Amino acid sequence: MSYQQLSERFQQLHHYRHLLSIAGWDQATMMPAKGNDARANAIAELSGLCHRISTASEVYDWLNAAEQETLTHEQQANLREIKRQLTHAQALPESLVLAQSKAGAKCEHAWRQQRIDNDWAGFAKNLKEVVQLSREEASLRAEQTGLSRYDALMDLYEPGMRSAEVDRVFGDLRQWLPDLIQQVQTQQKSQVITQPQGPFSIEQQKQLGQYAMQLLGFDFDAGRLDVSSHPFCGGVPEDVRLTTRYNTDSFAESLMGVIHETGHARYEQNLPKNWLGQPVAEARSMGIHESQSLFFEMQIARSRSFLSHLAPEISRIFGAQAAFDPENLYQLYTRVEPGLIRVDADEVTYPAHVMLRYEIEQALIEGQIEVEHIPDLWQANMQRYLGLNTAGNYKDGCMQDIHWTDGSFGYFPSYTLGAMYAAQWFHCIQQQLPQVENQIAQGDLGQISQWLNQHIWQQASFLTTPELVQQASGEALNPSYFRQHLENRYLHNLR
Amino acid sequence: MSYQQLSERFQQLHHYRHLLSIAGWDQATMMPAKGNDARANAIAELSGLCHRISTASEVYDWLNAAEQETLTHEQQANLREIKRQLTHAQALPESLVLAQSKAGAKCEHAWRQQRIDNDWAGFAKNLKEVVQLSREEASLRAEQTGLSRYDALMDLYEPGMRSAEVDRVFGDLRQWLPDLIQQVQTQQKSQVITQPQGPFSIEQQKQLGQYAMQLLGFDFDAGRLDVSSHPFCGGVPEDVRLTTRYNTDSFAESLMGVIHETGHARYEQNLPKNWLGQPVAEARSMGIHESQSLFFEMQIARSRSFLSHLAPEISRIFGAQAAFDPENLYQLYTRVEPGLIRVDADEVTYPAHVMLRYEIEQALIEGQIEVEHIPDLWQANMQRYLGLNTAGNYKDGCMQDIHWTDGSFGYFPSYTLGAMYAAQWFHCIQQQLPQVENQIAQGDLGQISQWLNQHIWQQASFLTTPELVQQASGEALNPSYFRQHLENRYLHNLR
Ligand SMILES: [Zn+2]
Ligand SMILES: [Zn+2]
Repeated sequence: MSYQQLSERFQQLHHYRHLLSIAGWDQATMMPAKGNDARANAIAELSGLCHRISTASEVYDWLNAAEQETLTHEQQANLREIKRQLTHAQALPESLVLAQSKAGAKCEHAWRQQRIDNDWAGFAKNLKEVVQLSREEASLRAEQTGLSRYDALMDLYEPGMRSAEVDRVFGDLRQWLPDLIQQVQTQQKSQVITQPQGPFSIEQQKQLGQYAMQLLGFDFDAGRLDVSSHPFCGGVPEDVRLTTRYNTDSFAESLMGVIHETGHARYEQNLPKNWLGQPVAEARSMGIHESQSLFFEMQIARSRSFLSHLAPEISRIFGAQAAFDPENLYQLYTRVEPGLIRVDADEVTYPAHVMLRYEIEQALIEGQIEVEHIPDLWQANMQRYLGLNTAGNYKDGCMQDIHWTDGSFGYFPSYTLGAMYAAQWFHCIQQQLPQVENQIAQGDLGQISQWLNQHIWQQASFLTTPELVQQASGEALNPSYFRQHLENRYLHNLR
Repeated sequence: MSYQQLSERFQQLHHYRHLLSIAGWDQATMMPAKGNDARANAIAELSGLCHRISTASEVYDWLNAAEQETLTHEQQANLREIKRQLTHAQALPESLVLAQSKAGAKCEHAWRQQRIDNDWAGFAKNLKEVVQLSREEASLRAEQTGLSRYDALMDLYEPGMRSAEVDRVFGDLRQWLPDLIQQVQTQQKSQVITQPQGPFSIEQQKQLGQYAMQLLGFDFDAGRLDVSSHPFCGGVPEDVRLTTRYNTDSFAESLMGVIHETGHARYEQNLPKNWLGQPVAEARSMGIHESQSLFFEMQIARSRSFLSHLAPEISRIFGAQAAFDPENLYQLYTRVEPGLIRVDADEVTYPAHVMLRYEIEQALIEGQIEVEHIPDLWQANMQRYLGLNTAGNYKDGCMQDIHWTDGSFGYFPSYTLGAMYAAQWFHCIQQQLPQVENQIAQGDLGQISQWLNQHIWQQASFLTTPELVQQASGEALNPSYFRQHLENRYLHNLR
């Protein structure tokens, strides 16, 4: 049976990717400097094998034959996802993949210093090469999928999502977000916030992070928390590896980072066990993944109810401080301040950073603009959305992210789609569980977890994204819940 | 060129084994419980691939063709080692390998409880299965290599070593070791030793371990120290992963364990960089490997000169104690006490444990005895060599080790061969560097490292073991240096 053979091939890939994932985690958390070359070579070797066995000719024979076989509903869904992954895998000639990985590595390596030096001219030279190759990639993927060039790239991260849809929801956002940012800032001007006084030891911050993870349902028998310079959620569904980094002057970044990654982790830890190893058991999309991390970070953790529960534990660990008053913590963690850096942005200004990048990268991939035009567009939109001037400041402007540097065009929209989905899930839960704020205030996330488990985690990729959103919330992606959430929290001082 | 193709295949295997090794290290040090099944499956998948690509038919075609090609001396040595590895790899049908891994896993799993319960009857039943399969393995390997059955197994760990040679050196040992043990015990009766007073915190023990590693030349940019329940030296030559375990009542076990593993680590860290990935760049044998760990632990670290250097650091870390007087430490770390457990044995009684096991496992594999006979033979030889009674005490007798449980017959001799090689290296160094004890006392291991690097580490597997021993020390393996070392240290109170 050809379906069976396909499914065994993916099981095999799953095992290889397990080792790649752990080796990648180790590289970021444990590996000493001199181990890097050997590790990179080992990872490249097994990645190459994975690519070869995913694109071997027999796989396409099996795929064609399997489409004629009688399959259960679940197997059909799996076959759909297998086909999707194989289509993406075979789109590119190996020569292009190699050229991209080389250009990306070169650009990224030079960028680390160029960013420090604010050296746009030097960076632009390498970036042009990366963009050129990404355009080639986009053309090939577009040819194969019948999508536009940018959509063909975005489809890697957001299967089924199209620019037309992104334009619809971002178009809505563009209408009201800049005003909202203004209003919130005016309103928050009168706030008097007490800053927590450090230092906060790494050991205590780790304790607080683990307390929060426990509270949020992370299974420590199936995962760990470690340190890396760029926090991520890695490992495998059976053994999820979170990372954070600690700054002894402030514990908020690590705490909120850990909570964010815990959202990603719970999704991974609760993917359907019986199907692990098959594409249908993977997370639905980057946007849906981000909807889990942002649900935990933004919808739960930065709420008044959650912070009222967490405050006593913060005092217990670090010793009592006036700043640990729940309402003060709430004001701290919902403070809105337009800034130049995306990863430091608050919940309200973050989508502005994303929209700006989406507009530029789409035009860049579609060939409507060139690398030279980026700084001016950046400057104009930072002014328009956030009222900030970045003229001449490339390092805190268009040189700040790694995404373009290594050729990951099409990824940025996922962040804001995730924020919108998260608001939509929370709205839906509030309708079904009127006591939800009380439960959060009591540290009881049982029913919330149950809802997410049933509607998101266990669904994995059995449904398409629109089907998933429809089934979970009774309607399609609707950005008005995100707006409502921001207005409730930031203008009406609720939640 | 066929040699080139062989060499590329081994480079590929090296990359895969890198990932297996890191995954194995992670499993022992980092992995949470629920990750185990997925990890075991992933490791099995890639191990299976390694076996398939080592035994694919083209590999043997390349091997035959390569033997006709014009090669450098070094390439010839590499080809010899490639041939050796391939011969071992193709000796067994996959069905036997699978049956062994299943029987070994079953026996080992049950053993963990059976050992606690002193349940010899239950254990013997599983062990018979393991022995039966190891005998099949030995027959197949014997057929292919023309060696005796036991020698064919031992050749996996000690290439070129034969029972005849082991009998020669163990025969010598058997003559004088039991008497020596008696004499040392009589002499040590009058010692008054002060025991260090704990507790010794894990943090402080780790600090001491890392101090010793640094002193002994471990490169922390190319390796780490972590915790596992069974200490080992793993990772890859470019990134060596040591482990230890801590007991807060006593720091000696962890300290000496770390020093021992550091010996293994320095060998790995200093294998010839230009050849890494090729069989000729691997460590020569388990015995030569153990000669490095025992050189560091026994020849260096338990010497008066080293302990006089280490004592101030011990006091600095744990606070001053009378027990930390260098001479007291020396007496502590050279105390001889016959005991039932091999892994707890001191330098003098350890070879008795090995001889006893060697005699039993050799007879078992050659079919001269059966599993039922093990306890009586064990009892008789423990009495003969160490004057101890183990009748009825299986758990501290023939059930104590994991080696037979998982079918690793032929490994035990390496431990004592290693001790003998180590004594021979140190004797040789003493001849060439009359100031060596002074250097050790000053914590200066530069010249010793240089000697080991030149004669052992950089040699890797370019020479056969007898050639290596001859070139390094000017003569063949000579057990009299080990005897001299033990008599000097334990009877004449030198070193
Ligand atoms: Zn995230
Ligand atoms: Zn050892």
